[in-house]
Amino acid sequence: MLPQLTLYTAKCCPFAQRVEMAFSETGIKFSRCEIDLLKKPDWYSRVNTALEVPALSYGGSSVDPSRPSPDSIILTESLVLVELVNDLSNNQLLPSTLTPVQRGKARYFMTQISNKLVPAYVGTMFKGESADRILTAVDAIQCLLPAEGYLLGEQFTMADIVAAPFLARTKVVLSIIGQNVSAAQATLNTLETDDKFSRFRKYFDDITGRESFKTTYFEDIVKADISERLKILATQAEAGRLN
Amino acid sequence: MLPQLTLYTAKCCPFAQRVEMAFSETGIKFSRCEIDLLKKPDWYSRVNTALEVPALSYGGSSVDPSRPSPDSIILTESLVLVELVNDLSNNQLLPSTLTPVQRGKARYFMTQISNKLVPAYVGTMFKGESADRILTAVDAIQCLLPAEGYLLGEQFTMADIVAAPFLARTKVVLSIIGQNVSAAQATLNTLETDDKFSRFRKYFDDITGRESFKTTYFEDIVKADISERLKILATQAEAGRLN
Repeated sequence: MLPQLTLYTAKCCPFAQRVEMAFSETGIKFSRCEIDLLKKPDWYSRVNTALEVPALSYGGSSVDPSRPSPDSIILTESLVLVELVNDLSNNQLLPSTLTPVQRGKARYFMTQISNKLVPAYVGTMFKGESADRILTAVDAIQCLLPAEGYLLGEQFTMADIVAAPFLARTKVVLSIIGQNVSAAQATLNTLETDDKFSRFRKYFDDITGRESFKTTYFEDIVKADISERLKILATQAEAGRLN
Repeated sequence: MLPQLTLYTAKCCPFAQRVEMAFSETGIKFSRCEIDLLKKPDWYSRVNTALEVPALSYGGSSVDPSRPSPDSIILTESLVLVELVNDLSNNQLLPSTLTPVQRGKARYFMTQISNKLVPAYVGTMFKGESADRILTAVDAIQCLLPAEGYLLGEQFTMADIVAAPFLARTKVVLSIIGQNVSAAQATLNTLETDDKFSRFRKYFDDITGRESFKTTYFEDIVKADISERLKILATQAEAGRLN
């Protein structure tokens, strides 16, 4: 029997969506507690002093999520939680029938998402960096894909889960910033129309077409959140100029 | 039967030592090919276009390592390779007898090494940053340790392997920089004598006392390499000032 599992999460957050996709793929039941990331409740510091999502309360009794049981353990970090869900599901997200090399490829792909795609996304979104870096990251990812299917072909794995929420939000960020910055719009156009990225587009459609993605991705909420954050950043930058 | 395994490695490199420790702990046999990182051989670009170690040639026939067989696969990234050695050893480095929470704790510890200790080490060594950040990182790591033993108590795991090479080199870097910079010497003294870090010191002795550490760590070579790199950086900085 599985332990009590409560996921502290947010519909806008790509890290949190990874864990929700992992739960969805494996069919493991959990309680969901939405945290408003732009206005975090005071009690959340009792759950995670770092105030970040995702966080998972594991074990102990089922209680009001704002007062986690002292018998439960709080675990954080999206990649740690995806691996945990994989463990709980007897490796459904990285099956033991895969070869060691296939598992190695999946893990290498995840390092590239962490080291290339995530920094490019964060740089474009939060630091006003040039969107070019996104093309470099997507190209590096595309180079690792087989001719068709998911990263490991027919088998959908945690590698695809780790990528999907960031790839989806990268396009949203480019589209919103692109309304004012032509270079961002050009980057989006390249991703969406250039022959060079046709393999990427097919992969993107495949992973975002998974039921586990569709039921955990809320485009309107993601768009509203990104717009709001960009507005806050612009206000802060303006205040900085006036000081 | 295990495939052909050739590890491209360097005695000075902490990332590479992780993989050598993993091999040593599991008893899996491999061929070792030392790469001079300060004077990489031209042929190494045929093995790893990123020119980094560690890299592992997996499968194919046993050949001259400078001409890896087209039937072999090259895998890189130290964490990917440690996981691969774990896979090949039937999870000796993260046994399936551990609970999912224990495995989650091991993986969380590894994220803290990657996100806190490694950047603090790299910052102090290569960017002339204040050594204080090292104390913050070591403190964060120390907080995760149980009252005694390795991260998971009696069971030595990949989490300890991932930490050991960086903790050892951090002390060497502080000692060498400390010859000229009193703040670095003070940081080293704090780590080595302050009561606050007594748990860390016991852990440090435990993990560096493992046979797998002692047979893969070459203090003279590490010291010479770090001294040489610091000299090169100082010369570059001086040249920058003169330009």
